[in-house]
Amino acid sequence: MSKGIIVSGMRPTGKLHLGHLYVLENWARLQSEYDCYYFVADWHALSTSFEDNSSMRKNIREMVTDWLAVGLDPEKSVIFVQSDILEHAELHLIFSMITPLSWLERVPTFKDQVQQLKEQGKDINTYGFLGYPLLQAADILLYKADAVPVGEDQLPHLELCREVARRFNYLYRPVFPEPQGLVARVPLLPGIDGRKMSKSYHNDIALGAEPDLIKERVNAMITDPARIRKTDPGHPEVCIVHEYHSIYAADKLAGLEDECRGGRTGCVACKKLLAASIEEVMAPIRERRAEILKRPGYVDEILAEGARKAKAKAVETMKEVREVVFNE
Amino acid sequence: MSKGIIVSGMRPTGKLHLGHLYVLENWARLQSEYDCYYFVADWHALSTSFEDNSSMRKNIREMVTDWLAVGLDPEKSVIFVQSDILEHAELHLIFSMITPLSWLERVPTFKDQVQQLKEQGKDINTYGFLGYPLLQAADILLYKADAVPVGEDQLPHLELCREVARRFNYLYRPVFPEPQGLVARVPLLPGIDGRKMSKSYHNDIALGAEPDLIKERVNAMITDPARIRKTDPGHPEVCIVHEYHSIYAADKLAGLEDECRGGRTGCVACKKLLAASIEEVMAPIRERRAEILKRPGYVDEILAEGARKAKAKAVETMKEVREVVFNE
Repeated sequence: MSKGIIVSGMRPTGKLHLGHLYVLENWARLQSEYDCYYFVADWHALSTSFEDNSSMRKNIREMVTDWLAVGLDPEKSVIFVQSDILEHAELHLIFSMITPLSWLERVPTFKDQVQQLKEQGKDINTYGFLGYPLLQAADILLYKADAVPVGEDQLPHLELCREVARRFNYLYRPVFPEPQGLVARVPLLPGIDGRKMSKSYHNDIALGAEPDLIKERVNAMITDPARIRKTDPGHPEVCIVHEYHSIYAADKLAGLEDECRGGRTGCVACKKLLAASIEEVMAPIRERRAEILKRPGYVDEILAEGARKAKAKAVETMKEVREVVFNE
Repeated sequence: MSKGIIVSGMRPTGKLHLGHLYVLENWARLQSEYDCYYFVADWHALSTSFEDNSSMRKNIREMVTDWLAVGLDPEKSVIFVQSDILEHAELHLIFSMITPLSWLERVPTFKDQVQQLKEQGKDINTYGFLGYPLLQAADILLYKADAVPVGEDQLPHLELCREVARRFNYLYRPVFPEPQGLVARVPLLPGIDGRKMSKSYHNDIALGAEPDLIKERVNAMITDPARIRKTDPGHPEVCIVHEYHSIYAADKLAGLEDECRGGRTGCVACKKLLAASIEEVMAPIRERRAEILKRPGYVDEILAEGARKAKAKAVETMKEVREVVFNE
């Protein structure tokens, strides 16, 4: 029996950070159970940022380097760039013909995001932004995904994808599966200032960061502001370091909390422990990154080979799609 | 100096009729002055009729047979099917990212057509229908058209195309020309019942019709209902036959009108004259059609060769587009 198919993509934001690690580790885990297609969503990136793409190619290379460093395996998974496979655009166009406007207008994130990004000075009320869940549907269905790893917030998009598959299958012939959502419980790491971790907020810890940088970032983390002296009783529930401990030192968490509330272990010691824990996770990633960077052209080779494999599957699906849509 | 480039397309409606002849003759004339790209708009056909495409392939072959019979020359023009060139879908997707929704919503035909087609029982309020002027822009700009033969009613679409070209050139680098509209004064032939000529109204005269069928169709034309006997004075201004004479017997028109008003020439004689005039135009078309139909596979060969040429030009443009959009 052939394995199920997984498809997932990520926008090329350049170097990734610790917050991305758990999504990627989930992707890496899925490799043993599924045939996985992991792609760089460069056309999607245009939907919210079409004006300046000066570092798109560099961002793609850096992100894929991180994917590989974290454990995505080009022997097991198809790793490729979306825009290398024109069939994504073709299937998107065909889907656009059968998809009622109202389905896209009611996607809950649509109006919110237009508003949010407008406040950031980005005008994204474009035709393509309205249609991007449909491009996602094409991304997923082009490879006939059985399942898609998603966060809770992406479930409405997956539901649209399933509706589009159903409508296509109903109008023509059953061609597409209705992909299931694999909601992974990945920890949501805050940035060092407690906001969402993001390179643009400068509150992130980059994947492959050197030990000194890790220490510096951990030292800058916001702890309990009410605790002035080590002997003051701490409030771990407001402490970013403690939130990290809940992931990196889960086995010792009760003890650490007790020490903190009792004013026995101070923030300095606590941060030292955290920096060491993060370094333990980071060291092998950093090593693999260094290995990859030693091989110029390696990432491009992986992407070329991935494009070849993805193309083969895409061509197969589109042959079927054209046959049923155009009665060829 | 290289010739200017013309792009135009037509939806695959199957066999064409006399009403299409003047559009096609215009296309044929342009071949000597321009490098012409004439395509079958099969993806566009999906935007208003996605449910039943059972005869799409047959319709494409029949329409292109008529194109050739009327004088489109595959040695001079690139004749191809839109969906053979995935770059149309790619450029459409990229344009969709930079085009404000409002530009498409304000295209004057949009709401009207949704309403009209709804009355005909067709639900076309889809994402793709809203975006079809953008697909047209991609069709045109992919080949860097300098000019586009258009009817007056299509001028707003061409204006959108020019706006998209300007926006792209402004956001990135000047890649696209702003195509000019060539408004051709082609006669608008009514159907034999006076309504718009259309195969679906069964009021058309098919290109390549046999002499008997031409006579039958002309005999069924509505003339002045107030004229019962030949000697009654006729009213040419309400007569379909007379409207045809104004095209097919322009040199004798004053005489014919005089005869009719004077009750001297009857409708039977008038129709006989018209059938003969139409037959004169039709005979060479019928002959060329027969020649083409004797060569099975000929039309498919033309389309394969056209696809090869169109692809070469499309690839060239998209290389430039990707370079400027993704800073490659």
